[in-house]
Amino acid sequence: MDKQNIFNNIRVVLCQTSHPGNIGSAARAMKTMGLQHLYLVNPLHFPDPQATSLATGAADLLENATVCSSLSEALTGCAFAIGMSARKRQISHELVNVREGAARAVQIAASQPIALVFGTEMSGLSNAELDCCQLLAMIPANPEYSSLNLAAAVQVMSYEIRMAITEGRLEVDTTATELATNEALEGFYAHLEDTLIKIGYLNPSAPKKLSERIRRIYSRAKLEKEEVNLLRGILTLSVTPKKHTKY
Amino acid sequence: MDKQNIFNNIRVVLCQTSHPGNIGSAARAMKTMGLQHLYLVNPLHFPDPQATSLATGAADLLENATVCSSLSEALTGCAFAIGMSARKRQISHELVNVREGAARAVQIAASQPIALVFGTEMSGLSNAELDCCQLLAMIPANPEYSSLNLAAAVQVMSYEIRMAITEGRLEVDTTATELATNEALEGFYAHLEDTLIKIGYLNPSAPKKLSERIRRIYSRAKLEKEEVNLLRGILTLSVTPKKHTKY
Repeated sequence: MDKQNIFNNIRVVLCQTSHPGNIGSAARAMKTMGLQHLYLVNPLHFPDPQATSLATGAADLLENATVCSSLSEALTGCAFAIGMSARKRQISHELVNVREGAARAVQIAASQPIALVFGTEMSGLSNAELDCCQLLAMIPANPEYSSLNLAAAVQVMSYEIRMAITEGRLEVDTTATELATNEALEGFYAHLEDTLIKIGYLNPSAPKKLSERIRRIYSRAKLEKEEVNLLRGILTLSVTPKKHTKY
Repeated sequence: MDKQNIFNNIRVVLCQTSHPGNIGSAARAMKTMGLQHLYLVNPLHFPDPQATSLATGAADLLENATVCSSLSEALTGCAFAIGMSARKRQISHELVNVREGAARAVQIAASQPIALVFGTEMSGLSNAELDCCQLLAMIPANPEYSSLNLAAAVQVMSYEIRMAITEGRLEVDTTATELATNEALEGFYAHLEDTLIKIGYLNPSAPKKLSERIRRIYSRAKLEKEEVNLLRGILTLSVTPKKHTKY
């Protein structure tokens, strides 16, 4: 199955959100991670200009959001719902961290719709809402201060979903740099050793140990082709400085 | 080394932050993940009531924040600095995703101070600032909309740091429930099979296959001791209903 279809099979459900700004920030968080289906169960204020303002480039998620009058309605068609929990609970749901929760969500979302369910800013999900979920997921937090902002919690869970789907791959050009070949590196090391002997830093009768340590430094740096040329230019000038330099 | 010391060895550096609210939200994000050392390089407005308001329970991080006039000053004493990048860059720093970045940061922070460096809201880190860093880390994001809020980026990176230090362990009581023993489960299954035969659902001469499928359902549910008692109560009543029940 196409990865885009997995993203499409995942909805975020916000229950009884008090602050419209949090709805906007949550939409922005979702969209940065490739999620787009937002469900709102009885939001206190929605639509609201503050939500739109904080959504910035994710206002389309707010326009397409589904407003529901119950969690059960918001879960229509879902095969699996994960309740996000911030508190210790004396309840017999299975509890996992968000990384494990995201892994399970993505596995099911490969073939069926699933939901990530978030409670209110003040008290999270009610027990009745938790009973609509098959799994509880928790963000490991500082036990002395575990109060993540709602949108921050949506950001972390959406991030884990994206990591699970894309395996953490970065969408970047890798064409930027050309690494130096082995021959270029060996040419540089020979040039370097020769130069260090000429300036009296290495003892030509026993250059080995120090030379190896210096090679190791450059080896860790994973030199590019252009950088080898640059360094050899420095080596050349260090034994035969330019005459009449003006600077 | 004590895990708390690893947290103590990690500082978050925000460069030229424009909106004081973002400084407050970033402080909250850090504290929820157990980080506490905040460095601000030339913040546009600080201290500021908006920062304090959005920090909620993390106002102590703002009070103890170190304001610096250069990134170099903010990195004093650090053995390693990770630059957070949101853009593709034609620059020859090594680039990893935040999970890998956090793993490396934590490894070094076990013995020496390290820094996580964030740029401005509009344009991220300058090239000069990146040159103070040894590694670039990026949050994998939707290529069509990759604009995370600054505090959201701090939240994700701080979360990955916490996951790397604590290995994702949740700080919760596990004393809540007592799982059913094997004997209790076998007693229940025997009771169940007997009941299903009595009500005519199972054929007593060949009960095996259907019985196995039903067992599998309850096996996946990982029944608790109390739940087994509850289910056996139902079984008992299903063959000998209470007389004269009023409801």
